[in-house]
Amino acid sequence: MKESSRTPEVAPASSSQNDADMGVNSLWGGRFKGGPSEIMRQINASIDIDQRLAMQDLAGSTAHCHMLVKQGIISAEDGSQILEGLATIGTEIARGEFVFKIEHEDIHMNIESRLAELIGPVAGRLHTARSRNDQVATDFKLWLREEIDGLNLSIQSLQEQLIILAEAHIDTILPGLTHMQAAQPVTLGHHLLAYVEMLGRDRGRLSDCRARMNENPLGSAALAGTPYPIDRDFTTRALGFDRPTANSLDAVSDRDFALEFLAAATILGLHLSRFAEELIIWVSDNFRYIQLSDRFTTGSSIMPQKRNPDAAELLRARVGRSLAAFTNLVLVVKALPLAYAKDLQEDKEPVFATVDSLNLCLAAATGMVKDMTVNRERLYRAAFTGFITATDLADYLVMELKLPFRQAHRVTGEIVALAESLGVGLTELPLTAMQSIEPKLTEAVYEQLTLESSVAKRNSFGGTAPERVKAATAAARKKYVK
Amino acid sequence: MKESSRTPEVAPASSSQNDADMGVNSLWGGRFKGGPSEIMRQINASIDIDQRLAMQDLAGSTAHCHMLVKQGIISAEDGSQILEGLATIGTEIARGEFVFKIEHEDIHMNIESRLAELIGPVAGRLHTARSRNDQVATDFKLWLREEIDGLNLSIQSLQEQLIILAEAHIDTILPGLTHMQAAQPVTLGHHLLAYVEMLGRDRGRLSDCRARMNENPLGSAALAGTPYPIDRDFTTRALGFDRPTANSLDAVSDRDFALEFLAAATILGLHLSRFAEELIIWVSDNFRYIQLSDRFTTGSSIMPQKRNPDAAELLRARVGRSLAAFTNLVLVVKALPLAYAKDLQEDKEPVFATVDSLNLCLAAATGMVKDMTVNRERLYRAAFTGFITATDLADYLVMELKLPFRQAHRVTGEIVALAESLGVGLTELPLTAMQSIEPKLTEAVYEQLTLESSVAKRNSFGGTAPERVKAATAAARKKYVK
Amino acid sequence: MKESSRTPEVAPASSSQNDADMGVNSLWGGRFKGGPSEIMRQINASIDIDQRLAMQDLAGSTAHCHMLVKQGIISAEDGSQILEGLATIGTEIARGEFVFKIEHEDIHMNIESRLAELIGPVAGRLHTARSRNDQVATDFKLWLREEIDGLNLSIQSLQEQLIILAEAHIDTILPGLTHMQAAQPVTLGHHLLAYVEMLGRDRGRLSDCRARMNENPLGSAALAGTPYPIDRDFTTRALGFDRPTANSLDAVSDRDFALEFLAAATILGLHLSRFAEELIIWVSDNFRYIQLSDRFTTGSSIMPQKRNPDAAELLRARVGRSLAAFTNLVLVVKALPLAYAKDLQEDKEPVFATVDSLNLCLAAATGMVKDMTVNRERLYRAAFTGFITATDLADYLVMELKLPFRQAHRVTGEIVALAESLGVGLTELPLTAMQSIEPKLTEAVYEQLTLESSVAKRNSFGGTAPERVKAATAAARKKYVK
Amino acid sequence: MKESSRTPEVAPASSSQNDADMGVNSLWGGRFKGGPSEIMRQINASIDIDQRLAMQDLAGSTAHCHMLVKQGIISAEDGSQILEGLATIGTEIARGEFVFKIEHEDIHMNIESRLAELIGPVAGRLHTARSRNDQVATDFKLWLREEIDGLNLSIQSLQEQLIILAEAHIDTILPGLTHMQAAQPVTLGHHLLAYVEMLGRDRGRLSDCRARMNENPLGSAALAGTPYPIDRDFTTRALGFDRPTANSLDAVSDRDFALEFLAAATILGLHLSRFAEELIIWVSDNFRYIQLSDRFTTGSSIMPQKRNPDAAELLRARVGRSLAAFTNLVLVVKALPLAYAKDLQEDKEPVFATVDSLNLCLAAATGMVKDMTVNRERLYRAAFTGFITATDLADYLVMELKLPFRQAHRVTGEIVALAESLGVGLTELPLTAMQSIEPKLTEAVYEQLTLESSVAKRNSFGGTAPERVKAATAAARKKYVK
Repeated sequence: MKESSRTPEVAPASSSQNDADMGVNSLWGGRFKGGPSEIMRQINASIDIDQRLAMQDLAGSTAHCHMLVKQGIISAEDGSQILEGLATIGTEIARGEFVFKIEHEDIHMNIESRLAELIGPVAGRLHTARSRNDQVATDFKLWLREEIDGLNLSIQSLQEQLIILAEAHIDTILPGLTHMQAAQPVTLGHHLLAYVEMLGRDRGRLSDCRARMNENPLGSAALAGTPYPIDRDFTTRALGFDRPTANSLDAVSDRDFALEFLAAATILGLHLSRFAEELIIWVSDNFRYIQLSDRFTTGSSIMPQKRNPDAAELLRARVGRSLAAFTNLVLVVKALPLAYAKDLQEDKEPVFATVDSLNLCLAAATGMVKDMTVNRERLYRAAFTGFITATDLADYLVMELKLPFRQAHRVTGEIVALAESLGVGLTELPLTAMQSIEPKLTEAVYEQLTLESSVAKRNSFGGTAPERVKAATAAARKKYVK
Repeated sequence: MKESSRTPEVAPASSSQNDADMGVNSLWGGRFKGGPSEIMRQINASIDIDQRLAMQDLAGSTAHCHMLVKQGIISAEDGSQILEGLATIGTEIARGEFVFKIEHEDIHMNIESRLAELIGPVAGRLHTARSRNDQVATDFKLWLREEIDGLNLSIQSLQEQLIILAEAHIDTILPGLTHMQAAQPVTLGHHLLAYVEMLGRDRGRLSDCRARMNENPLGSAALAGTPYPIDRDFTTRALGFDRPTANSLDAVSDRDFALEFLAAATILGLHLSRFAEELIIWVSDNFRYIQLSDRFTTGSSIMPQKRNPDAAELLRARVGRSLAAFTNLVLVVKALPLAYAKDLQEDKEPVFATVDSLNLCLAAATGMVKDMTVNRERLYRAAFTGFITATDLADYLVMELKLPFRQAHRVTGEIVALAESLGVGLTELPLTAMQSIEPKLTEAVYEQLTLESSVAKRNSFGGTAPERVKAATAAARKKYVK
Repeated sequence: MKESSRTPEVAPASSSQNDADMGVNSLWGGRFKGGPSEIMRQINASIDIDQRLAMQDLAGSTAHCHMLVKQGIISAEDGSQILEGLATIGTEIARGEFVFKIEHEDIHMNIESRLAELIGPVAGRLHTARSRNDQVATDFKLWLREEIDGLNLSIQSLQEQLIILAEAHIDTILPGLTHMQAAQPVTLGHHLLAYVEMLGRDRGRLSDCRARMNENPLGSAALAGTPYPIDRDFTTRALGFDRPTANSLDAVSDRDFALEFLAAATILGLHLSRFAEELIIWVSDNFRYIQLSDRFTTGSSIMPQKRNPDAAELLRARVGRSLAAFTNLVLVVKALPLAYAKDLQEDKEPVFATVDSLNLCLAAATGMVKDMTVNRERLYRAAFTGFITATDLADYLVMELKLPFRQAHRVTGEIVALAESLGVGLTELPLTAMQSIEPKLTEAVYEQLTLESSVAKRNSFGGTAPERVKAATAAARKKYVK
Repeated sequence: MKESSRTPEVAPASSSQNDADMGVNSLWGGRFKGGPSEIMRQINASIDIDQRLAMQDLAGSTAHCHMLVKQGIISAEDGSQILEGLATIGTEIARGEFVFKIEHEDIHMNIESRLAELIGPVAGRLHTARSRNDQVATDFKLWLREEIDGLNLSIQSLQEQLIILAEAHIDTILPGLTHMQAAQPVTLGHHLLAYVEMLGRDRGRLSDCRARMNENPLGSAALAGTPYPIDRDFTTRALGFDRPTANSLDAVSDRDFALEFLAAATILGLHLSRFAEELIIWVSDNFRYIQLSDRFTTGSSIMPQKRNPDAAELLRARVGRSLAAFTNLVLVVKALPLAYAKDLQEDKEPVFATVDSLNLCLAAATGMVKDMTVNRERLYRAAFTGFITATDLADYLVMELKLPFRQAHRVTGEIVALAESLGVGLTELPLTAMQSIEPKLTEAVYEQLTLESSVAKRNSFGGTAPERVKAATAAARKKYVK
């Protein structure tokens, strides 16, 4: 059956005539320019949005047609004509010659109408054993599946650039922060790999979403299945789905795949916002850890030192779009009874917008990393604060002098306080001064307190030691880039 | 001062050449088609969005120019040329002849560039004592202020249609529901006026938002004010603002007005979603309380009884867009340090989208109410359930027999239970049966139990009695429609 | 190293003394009752929230202690004492005898302090080679992992009840709706299985989330790893993780697992809201398709026919909590630089609240399904509208008379219009009348137009035919319940 | 009338017996501990939440009782007894002696039950002419109104501390940032006053919300008004409302006031998050512009230089809670038909949580500002970058040499580029070098390029000049603090 609810019977011509009769402006008041039929057209038609599904709609129709022929539901001759017509339309669309018409409302009717123009009434056999309800679910899944594959590649590109930069900075030291306060020295390679991990999880989420959505709705028809002897396994294979959906009512009203994608997109957006924030801070005047290329900053013609990190700022801001899209669709779906409701037509715009924004953000992030210049010396100097290796002293007290950690912690605190009162850093504090607090300390302590020693020692799995980071870059390359 | 951060120095031509040199596709990986300069252009330019501010930008520039002349900051002759040029541009835009160029990034630079084409270097004097930072804040406020006025009228139109319908149904009885269960009979006029009240609060919120935002940012310059002897009161009056903003850092980084508007829009969207839900239920097969016109429904060519309430479904869904827009902007603004940051460029798209959607939804709602047919008989029959006037019995016991309310409540419960066990409604229960539970009851009780009596008695202020509703429609008309 | 940032040095006693000195109320103004140390205590301490992690904290400490001994980082004797102390604390907590103290701020310090009371300074060796930053990430993951397992079981219970009910209603017919308008007859079993599918995807999402989060952060220490010769694989095995986290900076600042869980919870909440909406509609006066038990409704003592579906209404509303929790955490994490920041302490409350609410909602949903009474006759009568099998007529024209679908569609429309104009349903329309439109129709058409025939024919995979639904219930039972 | 839907008829005892019979654990599956009656109790009862409305409930009941007596609906003697009982309950609650009982579900029934214990059956007369539906709306509004007043004071306290600090730093210079890049020097007083403005708008929004909500729902009864001759103006005056609500259906189902409050709270939360972000950056190692007191930071016992700004971090994070609460309530209200639905019971928890969090955050912010130490010298040195006064040079070229702004802009760019190429700041560039680009420049230019000159000149209204900031602090004090 065909759920034809989206085909208004009233001809546009007569209703716009009515509008004229009614003296539109005074009656409809307010701000809307146009009468009732124009309102309905604008709120109801989706062709300006869903024309993006054109190639997927053709792919679905092609598979459906082959199946109808194979099952004897339509004749081979009719099938051939339909397939030829669909191929022609595909060419027209690819060449930008296809004219999308608002009076055909949506992508499905636009294509079917054009098919009828091309091959005549036999076009009317294509819609046998399907409905726009299963058709749009199929199209949307095919589209999103492909976009997920694209995003997966885009994330991989960003990971790759991060890994390349990490490889170049395996032993570049910068202050590791907690609470935005210097805590312990870390290596830049290690820092960058943290984002590689986050992005790896993002790919995992997208991949799981893709796997879960990859069930074929086609054949669910309007809501209840169909009496025709269709072969859903055939279209499933033809369209690259893993299996047919198991319940027709669910299949036409399910938008979980879009929701799950938007949630994964939001988490990905968060990762990009965190990275962008670091870039913005790192290029600020008081940091200058890195320089972004002119390509991704804007300058000021009178303040040449300015490198406004516009791309990074937009990257930071745009997580808002993904959460907005998820929120939008959650609100749309809330409390909708089965099966299809027109509300569900609001599903595509937020997904399209999110995919576009993410592709752009990932490209910008990849570009910024690729072009970035690191100021090793400023990083090192920033790390060289008086007490950043205090933890190393405490650990040394535990390992060498066998103090319980909490006691070592207290002793270190006293030594640091002494150094601070003398206005010197830990490495400048005389041994005698140290021994006044912990007599067993020897000269050997000083080599524990350098930045290089501090990072080198942290070579537990997942730690910041250059040796460990070297292995981690290799592992990340193998796992994520190939 | 001019905050020129949004003017990239790199010429587009050379950088796209670079892109070619770099072998774009392999290097930038993933899905983005185009090299770094294309990425930056796409993420950075806003002209496709902010061209909607063209007329406001001209109005702001015009007022600014008058002020510069008046204060002797630029000469009268220069001022005349500039004003003439701006007028020409206004005409070009009104006629749709103005060509917006992506290389000029935003609306401000597009207009200034055109001005330079028209009048030469003197165009460069217009940007004296201002910056794009205060300019865009001014433009956006002017635009939103006007749209709020438009929405106010649109809401008024909807209120008016609701009042007209309420006037026609002052005594039309339907079951009043709590928990979607019949509770007490109410009048349809009363029910419709509930939405008039909600919409009245929406107008109040928009009006408060408008009043609060109506402070002039112009003259705040990039972030710190300006050394020129400007007269902010002059531009304030010229642009219809109530006063100049009091702090320049705040003025260029404030987007409260957009946030407050989006929050108000969300609450308005909620009201429309509630109303839409009722329409959808009321036209469903088991209800058929009303009929929506063909203009706002879609039919099915094979199931002629179907009137799919598509417009109402979309109205219900679209509250999602407003909350999404608010969420988006909250995320954008979160934790932004002062003053202007590029993140703020993400402010306009959600506001534009929300305004467009609301105008459309309000027009659709107004149209549906205007065209709606009420099935009085089905409403009445739906109200005529066996026990909907049970509360009236309890109240009668309190008023006539002076029982404490809680006791009256219990007695009523016993009487109703008896009626139910006999399979009759309250009005069909013999007096003797009633008296077996409360001996003091007389024949007079029966006239308390009709639907008409029930609603007529509820004439406390704000109540559902026809007499009260008649007064309420008059009051609503006076307050909201004029 | 120990990230001791959360241990304020100032003793509570002295600072509260300061408060008193400062004349708290006048100085701090506004509404907050208490001076600065009280403000800080309230905003900073998390023990009222994170005490829920007590058992996980003990499990983590126990595994950590075993590892320290095995690696020779602490002695076997010290290890024994610590393990004994931890066991004692476990018993105290299980018995509800453990006193959580606000002055120890969080669960980690509460347990360590108690350990010191029990076993003295050797307790100070437990915190060797870890930090509260990796500790809390470990605890939270252990807790959430367990709760996901619990939710998985709860969802399974709901699926089971739905399947049981579906098995009893394989051939119970009700009107299948699109746009809340009768479209085609479906079987109730089929309708219920749609929710089984949705819940199956929910379980899949939770399961993927669990698999992705199951990496062990312990050993990441404060942010950079640790110089001690720890064995992260040991604690990984001991705590049931799949592998250690690969990057320490990521490990201590990652809250993806909580975000992903909350997104999955939101989609689950949506499914429950849709189901709840259907229950609320189905028990409303105009439907009465089902009856909910007294256990899950509230009555009215004076309107005995009322069964307010309170539990279903709350189920419908509570998707708000999950989306709110997700939104909250997204906002918290937005633009946070690496590594740990105190903002992340805001992660647990939304997750705890969501888990609690979902457990309650799932129990309520399961209970409602279990207790539900179905009014077969009302369902059947609701389906028996005049034209609900119009699609069957069109399909018959295609299959028997070989009309193209679009033409069959048109012919059906004409027949239905004729029936409607005569005031009869399709099955009551005389054959001659049908033949006036399509002469080839015979008596055989009538048997196509019964509700039973309509559903029986839709036996494509995923369709509503009783035969198909029978197989589907068996498949669902096998897949989801075991 | 009494909407008694929330009073389950089934006695708890018997249903828990049933639970036992049913073998709860196996049947209800999953994780929920407890049978159906326990599920219903937990999901349905609200007393753990709404007991916060106790004093408002008493105030409402007291006013209602006076009105009933005055109107002759109950006798003066009955009224006296009721009032006495209510007073007793008020004392019990104030003393913490009142026992809230879960079996009485909500605050209204808890108080009425206690009243019945105290004064017997006459207590049953209090509920005449009202319902829990109008009662809870009244209570909630009274509570929120009071809390808004409290928040208003708390915001005022924060404004006052900001103004005090601004007064002390009218001429303290720091770099004004756009894009987090130094743009122009500004004064700290000016910067702080930006937040005073934001907070002023927050107070305006709360005040508008308070004014709009201040309509009395009492007398709307369950949904339709009441047949008793009540005097709504009397209770309106007694409870400090401005007028009675105009429509009973709207009054019992309206939660706009809560939504509007939560939106205003979110915008306030955003302002606090922005301020918190600045504090966190300002105390970071590379900035050290300010020092926060020990009261609002946590230290590290081994890294004494660390001042982790925990309170500021939490302030930054907690905007998440407000947006979450708004989102939650939007989702709850979406598409709810009139009138009261149980879903609305989900309204209070998000509002309570938001009010609590905001009070705490405002107190923390006020405390941090009050205790903050400013490092003038570091601020000044940070401002003293080479080109921060480049704009002043451009403006000078316009004002003294009458160049068009755009040309002045270009000339300045060339001069700065020259200085940069020579490795000097603008003030160190020899006059001859400047003249090589713009021959008309004289020695006088140098005095334009000092930080002091730069800020002093920006004395347009709203600008950063110390003279202007002095006036602005006075104006702010007058407007906001009194």
